[in-house]
Amino acid sequence: MLDDVTTASDERAIRALVETWMNATNRGELATVLDLMADDVLFMTPGQEPFGKEEFRARSQSLKGVEIDGRADIREIEVIGDWAWIRNQIDVTMGRAGGEQQRRSGYTLTILKKGDDGRWRLFRDANLVS
Amino acid sequence: MLDDVTTASDERAIRALVETWMNATNRGELATVLDLMADDVLFMTPGQEPFGKEEFRARSQSLKGVEIDGRADIREIEVIGDWAWIRNQIDVTMGRAGGEQQRRSGYTLTILKKGDDGRWRLFRDANLVS
Repeated sequence: MLDDVTTASDERAIRALVETWMNATNRGELATVLDLMADDVLFMTPGQEPFGKEEFRARSQSLKGVEIDGRADIREIEVIGDWAWIRNQIDVTMGRAGGEQQRRSGYTLTILKKGDDGRWRLFRDANLVS
Repeated sequence: MLDDVTTASDERAIRALVETWMNATNRGELATVLDLMADDVLFMTPGQEPFGKEEFRARSQSLKGVEIDGRADIREIEVIGDWAWIRNQIDVTMGRAGGEQQRRSGYTLTILKKGDDGRWRLFRDANLVS
């Protein structure tokens, strides 16, 4: 019973993380986004080597002035102790104000890890949005 | 201690699964490959909807006559009870005998699940090979 309660509260925490991630991304609040990932996080995207937190920061900073409107729909969530995985369906529209808007959609498969401080963070992320 | 021993034996089983998968793929032994995935498996690839076991079978059958030479290098493996995830680096060369050969490489992020029968099977697979 206690396990069920813990899992439910972990699921809520992870759903809140995804919501915070998307909102902060849409608002350009990079520090908030960086705070939601482990220091040794790895992002995987098609045709590229996996990259970590510093590269994520650099890429995000290079998008300065680009408006992002992203939405995530959690299709699956599984919590196993201090680990969890989620599958999201993502829709993103991005572009400079007044410029051409680019629309992308697709799925992500993400592994999360709960830290010693009890907080969930992104650990591995495979991004198939194209 | 017992947990460590169990995890080590699970890791060996998962490494053997990956080896069997690649060898069977290279030999065109589709039944063997299908047997290594859960019935409700989902494969994710860029720009496509996730697909399951029957679609995997259909796609593989449509590759009849295509020679495949694939190699997988397990970069990370994590076992958590009856769940596990692995990150592979994949190199594949494929083409018809005497025809042009196509070379692809990239990463996969895969979630595996141990069945009630004690066997590990692929459950979710995000394939970034391009």
